[in-house]
Amino acid sequence: MLPRGRPRALGAATLLLLLVVVVGFFLFGRDPEYGLQAAATLDGDPYGSRNRSTSNLQPLLPPKCELLHVAIVCAGHNSSREVITLVKSVLFYRKNPLHLHLVTDAVARSILETLFRTWMVPAVTIRFYDAEELKPLISWIPNKHYSGLYGLMKLVLPSILPLSLARVVVLDTDVTFSSDIAELWALFAHFSGEAPATLPWPAPSPTCPGPCCVLTLSHSPEAAPSCPPLPDKQVIGLVENQSDWYLGNLWKNHKPWPALGRGFNTGVILLQLDRLRQSGWEQMWKLMAKRELLTLQATSLADQDVFNAVIKEHPELVHPLPCVWNVQLSDHTLAERCYLEAADLKVIHWNSPKKLRVKNKHAEFFRNLHLTFLGYDGNLLRRELFGCPSQLPAEAEQLQQAMAQLDEEEPCFEFRQQQLTMHRVHITFLPHRPPPPQPHDVTLVAQLSMDRLQMLEALCRHWPGPMSLALYLTDAEAQQFLHFVETSPVLSARKDVAYHIVYREGPLYPVNQLRNVALAQALTPYVFLSDIDFLPAYSLYDYLRASIEQLELSSLQRKAALVVPAFETLHYRFSFPNSKAELLTLLDAGSLYTFRYHEWPQGHAPTDYARWREAQAPYRVQWAADYEPYVVVPRDCPRYDPRFVGFGWNKVAHIIELDAQEYELLVLPEAFSIHLPHAPSLDISRFRSSPTYRDCLQAFKEEFHQDLSRRYGAAALKYLTALQLSQSRA
Amino acid sequence: MLPRGRPRALGAATLLLLLVVVVGFFLFGRDPEYGLQAAATLDGDPYGSRNRSTSNLQPLLPPKCELLHVAIVCAGHNSSREVITLVKSVLFYRKNPLHLHLVTDAVARSILETLFRTWMVPAVTIRFYDAEELKPLISWIPNKHYSGLYGLMKLVLPSILPLSLARVVVLDTDVTFSSDIAELWALFAHFSGEAPATLPWPAPSPTCPGPCCVLTLSHSPEAAPSCPPLPDKQVIGLVENQSDWYLGNLWKNHKPWPALGRGFNTGVILLQLDRLRQSGWEQMWKLMAKRELLTLQATSLADQDVFNAVIKEHPELVHPLPCVWNVQLSDHTLAERCYLEAADLKVIHWNSPKKLRVKNKHAEFFRNLHLTFLGYDGNLLRRELFGCPSQLPAEAEQLQQAMAQLDEEEPCFEFRQQQLTMHRVHITFLPHRPPPPQPHDVTLVAQLSMDRLQMLEALCRHWPGPMSLALYLTDAEAQQFLHFVETSPVLSARKDVAYHIVYREGPLYPVNQLRNVALAQALTPYVFLSDIDFLPAYSLYDYLRASIEQLELSSLQRKAALVVPAFETLHYRFSFPNSKAELLTLLDAGSLYTFRYHEWPQGHAPTDYARWREAQAPYRVQWAADYEPYVVVPRDCPRYDPRFVGFGWNKVAHIIELDAQEYELLVLPEAFSIHLPHAPSLDISRFRSSPTYRDCLQAFKEEFHQDLSRRYGAAALKYLTALQLSQSRA
Repeated sequence: MLPRGRPRALGAATLLLLLVVVVGFFLFGRDPEYGLQAAATLDGDPYGSRNRSTSNLQPLLPPKCELLHVAIVCAGHNSSREVITLVKSVLFYRKNPLHLHLVTDAVARSILETLFRTWMVPAVTIRFYDAEELKPLISWIPNKHYSGLYGLMKLVLPSILPLSLARVVVLDTDVTFSSDIAELWALFAHFSGEAPATLPWPAPSPTCPGPCCVLTLSHSPEAAPSCPPLPDKQVIGLVENQSDWYLGNLWKNHKPWPALGRGFNTGVILLQLDRLRQSGWEQMWKLMAKRELLTLQATSLADQDVFNAVIKEHPELVHPLPCVWNVQLSDHTLAERCYLEAADLKVIHWNSPKKLRVKNKHAEFFRNLHLTFLGYDGNLLRRELFGCPSQLPAEAEQLQQAMAQLDEEEPCFEFRQQQLTMHRVHITFLPHRPPPPQPHDVTLVAQLSMDRLQMLEALCRHWPGPMSLALYLTDAEAQQFLHFVETSPVLSARKDVAYHIVYREGPLYPVNQLRNVALAQALTPYVFLSDIDFLPAYSLYDYLRASIEQLELSSLQRKAALVVPAFETLHYRFSFPNSKAELLTLLDAGSLYTFRYHEWPQGHAPTDYARWREAQAPYRVQWAADYEPYVVVPRDCPRYDPRFVGFGWNKVAHIIELDAQEYELLVLPEAFSIHLPHAPSLDISRFRSSPTYRDCLQAFKEEFHQDLSRRYGAAALKYLTALQLSQSRA
Repeated sequence: MLPRGRPRALGAATLLLLLVVVVGFFLFGRDPEYGLQAAATLDGDPYGSRNRSTSNLQPLLPPKCELLHVAIVCAGHNSSREVITLVKSVLFYRKNPLHLHLVTDAVARSILETLFRTWMVPAVTIRFYDAEELKPLISWIPNKHYSGLYGLMKLVLPSILPLSLARVVVLDTDVTFSSDIAELWALFAHFSGEAPATLPWPAPSPTCPGPCCVLTLSHSPEAAPSCPPLPDKQVIGLVENQSDWYLGNLWKNHKPWPALGRGFNTGVILLQLDRLRQSGWEQMWKLMAKRELLTLQATSLADQDVFNAVIKEHPELVHPLPCVWNVQLSDHTLAERCYLEAADLKVIHWNSPKKLRVKNKHAEFFRNLHLTFLGYDGNLLRRELFGCPSQLPAEAEQLQQAMAQLDEEEPCFEFRQQQLTMHRVHITFLPHRPPPPQPHDVTLVAQLSMDRLQMLEALCRHWPGPMSLALYLTDAEAQQFLHFVETSPVLSARKDVAYHIVYREGPLYPVNQLRNVALAQALTPYVFLSDIDFLPAYSLYDYLRASIEQLELSSLQRKAALVVPAFETLHYRFSFPNSKAELLTLLDAGSLYTFRYHEWPQGHAPTDYARWREAQAPYRVQWAADYEPYVVVPRDCPRYDPRFVGFGWNKVAHIIELDAQEYELLVLPEAFSIHLPHAPSLDISRFRSSPTYRDCLQAFKEEFHQDLSRRYGAAALKYLTALQLSQSRA
């Protein structure tokens, strides 16, 4: 699509382009080495090398609003993290709208669906393809590569992508961009057989089939004129392999799949889908794979083996890309020959199972590029493309409008802005094994930020069951968190703890939004709604499951909230009681208190600690103003009210909601959990001291009560009365 | 300088370039609007707009190893922070070696000298110019702009930069790059009068002098042929102003300095220094400024007023640059006309006193670009330029070699790596007023990371004197810290607290390196070497100064370390004692303990708390193994040993060093400080649990003792004996 017409300018431009083409052909005929720069190979001249000036003579970029298509295969938790870093690098440099075609398993789909829905990046559309459905198409191919079956799925992309799609860039999850993907897209124009209108520069190579020819050329430029004329069949753009794997001399009896010379790497592929389909790609690659599998037991490098086998047989299909578009950082890489000469690296490929830990004397340099995007604040990528029609998702558009309607001068503006903020969410950030379905199982639900990470190990020791934790972090902190878990034997052993990253945005801690994220991801029938600075009794997990069973909560569909009495210690060195008896001793000795006994007794008074001391069986208690016990409820319980951001009243409102929906409040006689002391968080101290904070909190309480009356009518009256009573006392 | 010769290729390239030039002129003759794209103005066509393809037809980039020169005027703490963000954005995209010419006041020089010395970015050289010396050259010009005298200094750059320097890019501190500065440098080739060898593209403008002409042209393209021939005098490259300021119609009686139309903005300038000097620039601008000052009282926009007055008189001097090279985000900006059409923004200019808080409907977009570099990890910019000769500073080269000699398989590798790490240091990150010189003044010295920020307010309340604090933070955390201080009335009121950022790198907390940074920046004759989780007695600052005076430490050159006895509370809600008497009461009540009484009594036992209870006068104590009191010493005391990274023995070794240098240890009878409880930091818990950590610490202790023996001979024997004794007991 051409932009708004300007006939004269356009004519002039076309004329210029034609002239450039003429000059190019002229050059090409006389000095193939120079003309061949775009087809640079390992031994040749990388794209734009030696003299930076030449790198300006690049292919034409697509018009600024043209949609570019990218396909990626992604499965599992770790690949999902990788793909997000890749996408961040692409978005950082991109200036075009993007359509991502993501072939995913169920895990990656659920992660990436949530992520992109909450990320709301303008001018990015996503379509998912179910990897499960593709498995039968490729599962007959034995594969020894670490990517497993998923590694082979790139082969079937021409069959599964929409027929209307003519071109796509295919990327491995372990690549990082350091340039605008439109420059890569522009290389489609170099494929032989492209119409001259989009081919401003001479199709640079190969003038004879396959990279062998290019290699020869760059070693002895005189060989060029003897090459056969250009065929019109180039359908796959690839960078040559930067290792000797396919030469078959890495070790004794090393038998790689067939390839032209060093073969090609499939971490970055340009696929001319329309022509591939026309040329019977599906039959072609299957035939080739079957033939090779007669003598070779399995693929070693997944799809790459098959692509190379096809190309060896049909070298006219391949369009070699400049090496900078896939700088391969495996252990025995020859990439140095490429990047030491290049003016500019375009794409880095971590194609070693060691990934960032690969040995390479310039590894530090490449890691730095990658770390840039690992820690990059993804929120900053929510940038519009100026001059292209707005392409925000509907939800984002609505939010933007609601935001625009806020009054900046209103005293609670900052709160309302925070309430409306859609935080980017990365669910199950780390590998996670869902708990096996059990009718009485309980997930501990909590939220935290960086300053409470050190609670996690203790929590794991106290709670052997499943947990769903929301972490409020920056992108950089998420990486620190990852490292923290990986280096903790206690944490890395626990695959039943799901960590959901909610990315930081705005000045107030969105406590209830975090709780709702963690709650929504709990997979057991019951949840224990706790806070991160509480340690449950060692026996609590077992005791809760037994109680749920004994109380027949699930079978009777009894609507109950089981109260876990809360205590606190003011000592930070503290020996945790092993039983209720030990707890009572500590309580009597003044080493423990009931929670917030000194500052906020009404928060837990209705639990009736005196009765609890003696209780042998669960007992029912009544709601009262400001009650905020820690409870165990069914997973489908009401959500937390996200209007309470920062601190204050976030749990109180939830308990009111439970009471309004007629949950029985049952205190468990053997349950307890203990709050550990900690320095006040920055977020708390910043806002607790502000009078605006108190005024706004009051306003939100009143709005909450209005909503209650609307939903529960007269039944909600008691909450309002209680509120007014407590205010008149204050 | 041309890269390595390749005669044929070069010939071909030259031929191509010539053809491009021919085509360009051909186009230019027929369609000035299209040919004029590089001279885009507000009302015209921004560079590379509408059709992205055209943006590829850029000027040739300089060869990849060519040195580019950049000049920046910078004064004070806040501008120093700004300039670092600017430099980060330049370094992120640059591919050429850079030479920065920094005109600074003493404050900025000291900050930036330390920063660049510790940053060790390859292929960046720095030269400082003393702004103080330039003041007489411009102080005769009255200036109302917020930049003060410094704003005028750009005028004298041609006189003060080295004569050998022919070209320089001049930048304001409030610009952010989002492209390679080499592209800007390349625009020098467009100046009229440039040799064709470096002018591959037709000099696009102006064909008649001044922007007025360009404005006319873009409104009525037919006017072009009537323009006079190109003069060869262009010496200043500038982007047109994107506000109506110079039109003089902003308010009644608004009398701006003279300018051509909207005039030009001087946030980004290309200076052709050699030609400027030849053309008598110095006389020219002075004459013009003097003439205008006859009728106008002062400059309003500093150098910009003078530049514009000169250009109004000599329009042939200016080479208008494409608007994308200085997208001006002031309150009434017209920049939208530029960026909505542009394919690519190159430089953003926050030219409003409101800076990032400027009102602009796309402000969010621009802020995101800026925030990218505010929070960007500067360590990642320590990347080599592949293919250019190594240009590491000598110190960096040595460090790199020492690092390379470390054995990765050695168990203490991680520790040794951390010991060798040169952390990037930004001293006096926030505005700071040095304390007036007083012979007995004491600076509190401490270090902290993000998880102890909440201690700062309490510390400020307890210590009314100067402090020098080292903060171990990431770049992003440094921004959070800035926000934290700005929103705290307590902290923002204190200009006698100097905050030095040491940027995080490596897994171990470099505690002693941090202490040394804070110690080196203390400006009073004495320092109180404390830790961040201690609160001093309210009276301690006064008491210490009085004690130093009474003990006549300074007059007698008495080498003494005054011991401040240390206590601890295990309660996190705690009422601080107002006197020694109150403290003793709490101690007797068991609410306080002597510090580490339970875990590590030997650390403070030699202070002799029993004697302290009764003491009325300072008393001398003897060193003993593992003694680590908090002491007040002269500023020139021995540094901490940086080999102790992570935790353990970092203070013990320092006290040994003091004792070896024969400092008397004098306990002060009224001094005390109290440790507050906190959760163990992540850094501690990660390493305390590891056996390797203990083994390595032991190895470092032994190495430390070997060094002691080497330096102090037989006198150091007692420390070794004590170590062996304590080990045999353990």
